[in-house]
Amino acid sequence: MNTYAVILAGGSGTRFWPASRRLRPKQLLPVAPNSDELLLEATVRRLRPLVPPEKILVATGTHLVDAVRAALPAVPPSSVLGEPVARNTAPCIGWATQLIQRRDPDATVMVLPSDHHIADEAAFVAALERAVASAESGPITTIGLSPARPETGYGYIERGEQISTGIWRVARFVEKPALARAKEYVQSGRYFWNSGMFFFRAAAMLEAISEHAPALHAGLERIRDAARSGAEREREETVRMFEATESVSIDYAIMERVSPLNLVPAEFGWSDLGSWQAVWELSEKDPRGNALETNSLALDARRNLVRSLRSAADGRAVVLLGVDDLCVVDTDDALLVVARERAQDVRLVTEELRARGEKDKL
Amino acid sequence: MNTYAVILAGGSGTRFWPASRRLRPKQLLPVAPNSDELLLEATVRRLRPLVPPEKILVATGTHLVDAVRAALPAVPPSSVLGEPVARNTAPCIGWATQLIQRRDPDATVMVLPSDHHIADEAAFVAALERAVASAESGPITTIGLSPARPETGYGYIERGEQISTGIWRVARFVEKPALARAKEYVQSGRYFWNSGMFFFRAAAMLEAISEHAPALHAGLERIRDAARSGAEREREETVRMFEATESVSIDYAIMERVSPLNLVPAEFGWSDLGSWQAVWELSEKDPRGNALETNSLALDARRNLVRSLRSAADGRAVVLLGVDDLCVVDTDDALLVVARERAQDVRLVTEELRARGEKDKL
Repeated sequence: MNTYAVILAGGSGTRFWPASRRLRPKQLLPVAPNSDELLLEATVRRLRPLVPPEKILVATGTHLVDAVRAALPAVPPSSVLGEPVARNTAPCIGWATQLIQRRDPDATVMVLPSDHHIADEAAFVAALERAVASAESGPITTIGLSPARPETGYGYIERGEQISTGIWRVARFVEKPALARAKEYVQSGRYFWNSGMFFFRAAAMLEAISEHAPALHAGLERIRDAARSGAEREREETVRMFEATESVSIDYAIMERVSPLNLVPAEFGWSDLGSWQAVWELSEKDPRGNALETNSLALDARRNLVRSLRSAADGRAVVLLGVDDLCVVDTDDALLVVARERAQDVRLVTEELRARGEKDKL
Repeated sequence: MNTYAVILAGGSGTRFWPASRRLRPKQLLPVAPNSDELLLEATVRRLRPLVPPEKILVATGTHLVDAVRAALPAVPPSSVLGEPVARNTAPCIGWATQLIQRRDPDATVMVLPSDHHIADEAAFVAALERAVASAESGPITTIGLSPARPETGYGYIERGEQISTGIWRVARFVEKPALARAKEYVQSGRYFWNSGMFFFRAAAMLEAISEHAPALHAGLERIRDAARSGAEREREETVRMFEATESVSIDYAIMERVSPLNLVPAEFGWSDLGSWQAVWELSEKDPRGNALETNSLALDARRNLVRSLRSAADGRAVVLLGVDDLCVVDTDDALLVVARERAQDVRLVTEELRARGEKDKL
């Protein structure tokens, strides 16, 4: 009944260039496999069984507020929060949590990323229900994902003692491991990927911030006090808080310092869609491994991805002949052809464009 | 003084898809290396030292007449001839030759393809001057190109006895040879590529047609007679002649049957620009072998060709990352990514599009 969601939608996602741009980052792209939904749209839709749109806050950069509001017509415009300056997740989550707590002192809050893909949505909802129940019992709770592979790009969480069915204590957070260590983690069965999904009673989080991030807490208190003098003063104080606060993740500022913490292990076909390679992996493919679009054609071509993100449905054809293992991304003002195995290096392109001063392409 | 040119501009050139289309075939494309000229435009320009535009006839398909006139503002519109139906080169050359002969009974005619590339234009002009002189001396004359490689895709001409400086008799025409035979031809020094360039006194060609293609000659006579009753009757008879005549090349109908024939061997950096591969070979390249456009960018990429043929100079960027040996061709309504070594198979694409009924892309 008192469950709220905070969706973090501040990311930039340059690895999806040329689809992703400063004003159209990854969470505002329809890059989910086999779907036309924007990733952010899908995130809100998946929460329907748990949280109605009027209990969802979306935090994003001020330059993205209009685009986020347009993408989420069911979410009240005032619930789309523009972070005055980017300060990583801790100040933002603290701010959103306080806003919710002022509205509902008994609120339970879930914090979710906006740009991931979930294959098994029923399992996802079940895991969130369990994590909310865990948070309502007291401890801040996180979801840990059963590792599908010895990934060295993610942080891991080791589980401690079991609390109840499907709920464990967190033993510790560990940074991105080397490959040998990651393999041990996967084999042990005791380690899980850090999902970036957090669940807590608003009061519990604000108390944890008070203890572990007192400067942030003081800033939040000043915002609350200023709010009594009206929206303008509140906004001023919010800008001040963000500008004065160091850039720090909620993991580092709070989660790694709080005890006890609960862990809900889960498996729901999660992917962070880190690059065009991930989009290809998860897409439906023809017998030759090509993930194409309606207007694309592949002759003697294998294991390619074609994605068209154009403003007009103009039927522009993308034709591949005799090529393998490419990602071809077609947009109005830029076209990318990248070897699939180099998809994670697309940021090299945005770096080069920045160096050349081609701002309109960023 | 009495030299005329007939430029054959009826080809379709599907190997340059998606740049080439039914209404924009190869000769109307700016695919010459390092140039913005249309191939047909360049063909007319190269003739300037020899033939003024008002003595040039251009033969093309009726559907291309408007586009050819637009491409060649210096050529009188009435000199752009629309072939009622495509019947290969013999009827077309016969028709154009008769038109010229009616205008100037002493005319000497050169027949040239419209879609080739010439690297050494001074040598080209010198070869044409020699061939015209040879034709004015009597025999129909052709230019033979010193073979740059044992090409199996072209016909060859064997030279006979020498007539004068740089002029020989043709011993025989030979069809496209197998590779071993082609190598012998190249080593012998006596064989030349058939250039498709012919030079003759109009009267000599009409006499040869009379002897070796009497049905065609009769049709041409009927056109000349009808012309006395006005342009409409002439047009009617022209349509009738084309429809009634078998489709046959000037090589087969006339050149291989006439004797004596003269040969002017030449070397002027000729290329038939048979595919995007040929465009890449002849283009200026960066140190990594990429032939790019102003708005293209190649990172960790080697030996690629990027060609942009868009109606708007919109600065659309084409970016390559980590890919080698590709041709990327960007047009308004279609994009092609083809392995460079498969460039000669681009017709497979047009065949597939035709099978799918996608006429607007052809």
